[in-house]
Amino acid sequence: MNDTFLKACRGEKTDYTPIWIMRQAGRYLPEYQKVRGNVTFLELCKTPELCVEVTLQPIDILNVDAAILFSDILIPLEAMGAKLEFHEGRGPVFPDPIKNQADLDKLIVPDPAEHLGFVMETIRLLRKELNVPLIGFSGAPFTNATYLIEGGSSKVFWETKKMMYTAPELFHGMMQKITDCTILYLKAQAEAGAQALQIFDSWAGVLAPCDFKTFALPYVQEIIRELRKATDIPLIYFANNGSTLLELSESSGADVLGLDWRINIGDAAKRVGKVALQGNLDPFSLLLPKDKLKKRIGNILDDAKDTNGHIFNLGHGIHQFTPPEQAIAAVEFVHELSGR
Amino acid sequence: MNDTFLKACRGEKTDYTPIWIMRQAGRYLPEYQKVRGNVTFLELCKTPELCVEVTLQPIDILNVDAAILFSDILIPLEAMGAKLEFHEGRGPVFPDPIKNQADLDKLIVPDPAEHLGFVMETIRLLRKELNVPLIGFSGAPFTNATYLIEGGSSKVFWETKKMMYTAPELFHGMMQKITDCTILYLKAQAEAGAQALQIFDSWAGVLAPCDFKTFALPYVQEIIRELRKATDIPLIYFANNGSTLLELSESSGADVLGLDWRINIGDAAKRVGKVALQGNLDPFSLLLPKDKLKKRIGNILDDAKDTNGHIFNLGHGIHQFTPPEQAIAAVEFVHELSGR
Repeated sequence: MNDTFLKACRGEKTDYTPIWIMRQAGRYLPEYQKVRGNVTFLELCKTPELCVEVTLQPIDILNVDAAILFSDILIPLEAMGAKLEFHEGRGPVFPDPIKNQADLDKLIVPDPAEHLGFVMETIRLLRKELNVPLIGFSGAPFTNATYLIEGGSSKVFWETKKMMYTAPELFHGMMQKITDCTILYLKAQAEAGAQALQIFDSWAGVLAPCDFKTFALPYVQEIIRELRKATDIPLIYFANNGSTLLELSESSGADVLGLDWRINIGDAAKRVGKVALQGNLDPFSLLLPKDKLKKRIGNILDDAKDTNGHIFNLGHGIHQFTPPEQAIAAVEFVHELSGR
Repeated sequence: MNDTFLKACRGEKTDYTPIWIMRQAGRYLPEYQKVRGNVTFLELCKTPELCVEVTLQPIDILNVDAAILFSDILIPLEAMGAKLEFHEGRGPVFPDPIKNQADLDKLIVPDPAEHLGFVMETIRLLRKELNVPLIGFSGAPFTNATYLIEGGSSKVFWETKKMMYTAPELFHGMMQKITDCTILYLKAQAEAGAQALQIFDSWAGVLAPCDFKTFALPYVQEIIRELRKATDIPLIYFANNGSTLLELSESSGADVLGLDWRINIGDAAKRVGKVALQGNLDPFSLLLPKDKLKKRIGNILDDAKDTNGHIFNLGHGIHQFTPPEQAIAAVEFVHELSGR
């Protein structure tokens, strides 16, 4: 097996810089669109054979050094009992947002084997097929809480912050319940065969550092502390738009920190200690002409030369209108320029 | 006149920390809603007497130390010839977005006296009424360009970056034209009586530092260079979500840098040289109970003690659902805690 990705996560020396791409199994691929055309998004997420198929697609097409389980961060929230709908072109909707303790009390901490068995089955099937490491994942508690409170995506997170600031006990209670669920869910993924785990904190970047420290970080720390007792696979924490949260993020205990594209990766490396860094090409810069794309990738590789392990990635999920040949070229450039 | 704000902008010693609030003349105030109820948003922006009325409202209600001209950053774009519509609850729309050179060629660089006289008239009228300094403003070229290219607000700025990356000459041409317009517009505001000028770069934070340096910053630098030849009033540059752009932003030449709430103001102060800093309370934390709000404001004042001038503000515009009494309390706390 190609274990370059796992070595980089652990800060070990590698022959070249490994790369995978956030949302590499996704809408920009015609092969994905074909599978997706026959089922709803939730049906896709709950059908292991189809999840396996779309997870494998980019491995061959892009030649990336890791696979990531096809799923969605909101899947375990549905298993907690929150009604979840996906409307085409509108994003996820929770029609019954959590407003008070009674709403929160209705949510359960699900047994992953019972309520999320399709995810574990996908992982077991994938491990038989893959010759690169498989990454499992979940949303971070803060990010998942925003969906439950806002009732879906949000631009400004008014309801979330309103609860944080005016009903902090309710907010912390919700965070703890999501955390309990996430620990069980990620442990089960590791037991099923996931070889690394990424915690996506897509919305952490809307928090002031003092609020991140109080309301979000302790729960990520608890998840990582509990996972450490059960497994020694690499743990990745990605606080999107979290440039000012970098030192705090390091205190999460993760082996790897993900970076969005807003920060120079060399500047980030100077601010952290022993963690590896993952990132951080602006996904939209995949539109650059190939010579300029290659130069930009070279700059990131140069800037990352003093990191304690570098996994190349985009700074955010690949955009649905990205030409696949540009993503293929990016992977080739990373490999070529880093000596593969 | 209360010139505490102007002194702080220049890094001079002040008796207390001055405060104003971004979007202080706005929808959270019932007094504003009353005026706005009788006219469309664009009619309001183009009627000097009404602009004067809503600009003055928060000065008495909040007891802030500066006034900011009521207008919108998109107003000069309409004067350039771009069709602009405001739809209730949907934000601004440019129905004919700029896609190519021919579209760009249709835009003019307007004479402010001829096409934006209502703004200058508002400024002249306000100066007769105010006993605190009056801030004029414009959008920064990058931010204004995004509206023209996307046709309105955007979540991900795909079209903007697509133009940057695949048609850089067209993009730079548009930036230059907006810059030429902005220089004339801000010079005219200073001539009409504005006592400080703020450049709002609301979307600069979506750019990687290398792109900010290439595609956005040079135009801000040009504006500030040209304004310096005409006036010595303080110039404020606010790159929203721009924590990683702080050192580059300082090279804009501005006297004051605005900060959003994502960065600790003490950390920011350590990274810049002689500029004053403006900010940076999370606007939503105005929802905190008064004792906690006071404590948070005290923390920001403490963290800002080594700045070379501090103007207290929110890290973003005040939210429309904020109770006015909370904003009033925040102003009182800033004044009380800083020794007024």
